[in-house]
Amino acid sequence: ELQREIDKLHPADVAHILDALPPEDRLSVWHLVKADRDGEILLEVSDSVRESLLADMDAPEILAAAEQLDADELADLAEDLPDDVVHELMQRLDAPEREQLRSAMSYEEDQVGAIMDFEMITIREDVTLEVVLRYLRFMKEIPEQTDKLFVVNSENVLTGVLPLKWLLVNDPARMVSEVMAVDANTFHPDEDVVETAQAFERYDLISAPVVDVDGRLIGRLTIEAMVDVIREESDAETLSRGGLREDEDIFASVWKSLRNRWTWLAINLVTAFIASRVIGLFEGSIEKLVALAALMPIVAGIGGNSGNQTITMIVRALALGQVSPSSAKRLLRKEVGVAVLNGLIWGGVIGLVAWLLYGSAALGAVMTAAMTLNLLLAALMGVLIPMTLIRFDRDPAMGASVMITALTDSGGFFIFLGLATLFLI
Amino acid sequence: ELQREIDKLHPADVAHILDALPPEDRLSVWHLVKADRDGEILLEVSDSVRESLLADMDAPEILAAAEQLDADELADLAEDLPDDVVHELMQRLDAPEREQLRSAMSYEEDQVGAIMDFEMITIREDVTLEVVLRYLRFMKEIPEQTDKLFVVNSENVLTGVLPLKWLLVNDPARMVSEVMAVDANTFHPDEDVVETAQAFERYDLISAPVVDVDGRLIGRLTIEAMVDVIREESDAETLSRGGLREDEDIFASVWKSLRNRWTWLAINLVTAFIASRVIGLFEGSIEKLVALAALMPIVAGIGGNSGNQTITMIVRALALGQVSPSSAKRLLRKEVGVAVLNGLIWGGVIGLVAWLLYGSAALGAVMTAAMTLNLLLAALMGVLIPMTLIRFDRDPAMGASVMITALTDSGGFFIFLGLATLFLI
Ligand SMILES: [Mg+2]
Ligand SMILES: [Mg+2]
Ligand SMILES: [Mg+2]
Ligand SMILES: [Mg+2]
Ligand SMILES: [Mg+2]
Ligand SMILES: [Mg+2]
Ligand SMILES: [Mg+2]
Ligand SMILES: [Mg+2]
Ligand SMILES: [Mg+2]
Ligand SMILES: [Mg+2]
Ligand SMILES: [Mg+2]
Ligand SMILES: [Mg+2]
Ligand SMILES: [Mg+2]
Repeated sequence: ELQREIDKLHPADVAHILDALPPEDRLSVWHLVKADRDGEILLEVSDSVRESLLADMDAPEILAAAEQLDADELADLAEDLPDDVVHELMQRLDAPEREQLRSAMSYEEDQVGAIMDFEMITIREDVTLEVVLRYLRFMKEIPEQTDKLFVVNSENVLTGVLPLKWLLVNDPARMVSEVMAVDANTFHPDEDVVETAQAFERYDLISAPVVDVDGRLIGRLTIEAMVDVIREESDAETLSRGGLREDEDIFASVWKSLRNRWTWLAINLVTAFIASRVIGLFEGSIEKLVALAALMPIVAGIGGNSGNQTITMIVRALALGQVSPSSAKRLLRKEVGVAVLNGLIWGGVIGLVAWLLYGSAALGAVMTAAMTLNLLLAALMGVLIPMTLIRFDRDPAMGASVMITALTDSGGFFIFLGLATLFLI
Repeated sequence: ELQREIDKLHPADVAHILDALPPEDRLSVWHLVKADRDGEILLEVSDSVRESLLADMDAPEILAAAEQLDADELADLAEDLPDDVVHELMQRLDAPEREQLRSAMSYEEDQVGAIMDFEMITIREDVTLEVVLRYLRFMKEIPEQTDKLFVVNSENVLTGVLPLKWLLVNDPARMVSEVMAVDANTFHPDEDVVETAQAFERYDLISAPVVDVDGRLIGRLTIEAMVDVIREESDAETLSRGGLREDEDIFASVWKSLRNRWTWLAINLVTAFIASRVIGLFEGSIEKLVALAALMPIVAGIGGNSGNQTITMIVRALALGQVSPSSAKRLLRKEVGVAVLNGLIWGGVIGLVAWLLYGSAALGAVMTAAMTLNLLLAALMGVLIPMTLIRFDRDPAMGASVMITALTDSGGFFIFLGLATLFLI
C-alpha cells in the first residue's frame, strides 16, 4: 500500500519525503523504492541525505541505480561513491559516455563544465526546416528543457541556434541557415557557474550551448541546472552567515553537528577573548566607576549592528556588480555621513539615558562620543573590509561579518573605556 | 557614439549599467535611451533605481514608455506611478487589457495572480496536430518561454496541455486529445509565489497554466518569473538578516539610508539597554571582582553565536519543509546534546584560561558553568523561537535572530554574574 503510493510519486517528491524523515524511517522508505528509480531519486535528495542513502547500499545496488543515469548525472553522484564503484562504473559505459563522464568530473564544482549535460539535438544549416521536422519525428524523443536546436558544421563547430518556436512559425521550405540565430549566447566549460546563472537570468535563457576554445559544441546548459546554482548559492550564503560549514542533515548525530559548527565557534571564541583582554586593560577604571561595565556592551553592540548593515549592503552590491572598488571613496563619504548622524541621534539618546541613570553629565557625554566614534569605525571598516577582501579574491559575505563584529567589539570597548579613563577617572 | 553603443545593448544590460551608476550619471545615460525602449528597461532595473528614473519623467514620457508594455508588465510598474498617470493609462488600454491590468493589480505581491502573464497560445483538443502546426505558422509569433500550448474547451476550461516537443515528434495526423497531457501542473491565482517557485524547481517546469476555481484558464506562469521570485526571496532574506528594511540604492542619500536602517538600530538599542540593566543589577559584585567585567562578554557572545547556528539550521529546514513543529522534541534533544558538549569543551577551555589569567580556580569553574548554561539557553530558544514564530505565522528568519541574540546577551550576563555572586563574592 505504502509501496504503491511511493511508486506513484514524482521522484522529486519521494526525495523531498526522504529529506524530511528521521534516519530510521528514511531507510525504511528508501527500501520501498523500486530499484529502477533509485538513480533519479538519489539525484534529487540533499547532499547529506544522499550520503546516508549511499552508505546503506552495496556495490551491486549502486551500479544498478547508476545504470539509469546519464553521464552528467553520474558525475554528480561520483564524488560520493567509493573509488572501486566508480571504476567499475566507468568500465560499463560505452566509449563516448565514458569520455563525457571523465570530462564532467575533470571540472571544479563551480565551473560550467561540471553542470553541463550532453543531451542536445544538433542539425546542419544546409537543410530545410521540413527536413528538420522530419528528423525530429524520426528521433521520436526531444530531451527535456530543449527550447532550441544547435546548428553545427562538419567540424562540430557551432554556427548558430534554431529556437523551436522559429522552427514552428516559419515556412518549412526555408533553409535552416536563413532562419537560425547566429549571435546566440554561448558559454565555455571553464566559466564560473554563478556568472553563467546571472546571464541566464538576465537574458531569460532556457538552454544554451557550451563550446570549447575552437567553437566546437561540447555540451549544453539548462535553466533547470541554473536554478539549482542560484538556490545553492543563496543557501551557501545563508549557512555561512549563520556560521555553519555546510548544509546539515537536520537529524544528524550530535557528533556531526559539532564538526559542522566548531570552526565558527572557535573563531568567535578567539575574537571574544581579544575583546575581553581589551576590557582587562581598563580594570582599574572599571573598579573606580562600575557604571562603565554596564554601559560598554551598548557601545560595542550598536557598532557591530551598524557595521553589519553597511557590509550587507556593500557585499550585495558587489555581488550584483553594482559597485567596484573604485566607488569606495564615494561610498565611504556616504557611510561616514550616516554614521555621524546615527551617532549623534542614537548616541545622544543613550547618553541622555546614562546621564539620568547615573546622574553624571560627563558620563553621558563620553557615552555619546564613544558611540559616534565606534559607529565611524564601523562605517570605515564596513566599506573597506569587503572591498579589500574582493581585491584579494576572498569571499566577503562571511569573512567580512566576523571581522567587523570583532573590530567593533574590541574597538568599542577600547574607545569607550579609553575616553572614560581620560575624562572621568 | 555612446548613444549608438546603448542602442545596441540588450535592455537588461542597459538596466544593469543604470543600476551601477551614481545618480547624476544615471540620469544622463537614461536620457540617451530611445523612448521606445524606456518601458522594457524600466522593468529590468532595481526597485530603487526605477523610482529615481520615474521621478525624472513627466506624464507623457511615462505614458509613451507604458505603451510598449503588456498588461502584466504594466501592473509591475503601476505601484510606482502617480494615480493620474495610472488612470490615464487605463483609459488608453482596450477592454480585455484593462481587465487584465485590473486583475493583476488586485492580487498581493506574493500571490500567483500578481506575477502571471497573459501571453499564451490556446488550442482545441478536437483538431489534429497538423491543424495546430498550421495555426502556429499563421500566428507567426510564439511568446517567449513557451514550452507548451494550453488546450481549452468552448467554456475556456483547461482540459490539457500540449508540450511543443510532443507536437514536434508525433504524427501530424493524430488528434490533440490523443497526444496532450491531462495531468499537467496547474496553479491558482491566490497561491503563494514562493511555494509555486518551489514546484517549478521540483518538477523542472518552464511554463504552467493558471486556472480559476472552475478550472478556467486565466493566465500563465513562466520559469523566468519564478527565477525572479527565488532571487527576490533570497535577497529579502539577506537584507533582513543584515537589518535593512529594503534593497538600498547604493548611492542613495544619507537621509534615505537612515530611514532604511533605523528600525533595526532602534530595536538593538532597546535590547542592548536591557542587557545593560541586567549588568547594572550586579554592579556590587563587579566592584568587588572586576575580572567579571572582562569575562562576561565572552559568555554572552558565544551563546549568541551558538544560538544563531541552531536557528539558521532550523529556519532553513522549516523553509524547505524538512521539519514541522512536531519534530521539535527530537531536535531539542539533539541541540541540547550539542550545547552540553560545546559548553564542556569550549567552556572548559575558556574556564582554564580564566583560571590561569586570574589565578582563581573557582572563577574558572563559574565561567565553564555559565558558558554551558548559556549554550543550553541558546539551544532551547534556538529551537523554540522559530517553531513558535512559524506557529503564529510570522517570518522566523529575521525575528528569530534578533530575539536569540537579545536572550543570550541578557541571559548570559545574568547567568554568569548571578553564579559569580552566589559562589565567589
Ligand atoms: Mg530501493
Ligand atoms: Mg539530464
Ligand atoms: Mg552537487
Ligand atoms: Mg553534473
Ligand atoms: Mg528576468
Ligand atoms: Mg527579461
Ligand atoms: Mg554581540
Ligand atoms: Mg529616454
Ligand atoms: Mg516587483
Ligand atoms: Mg506582474
Ligand atoms: Mg511578458
Ligand atoms: Mg531541479
Ligand atoms: Mg529534476
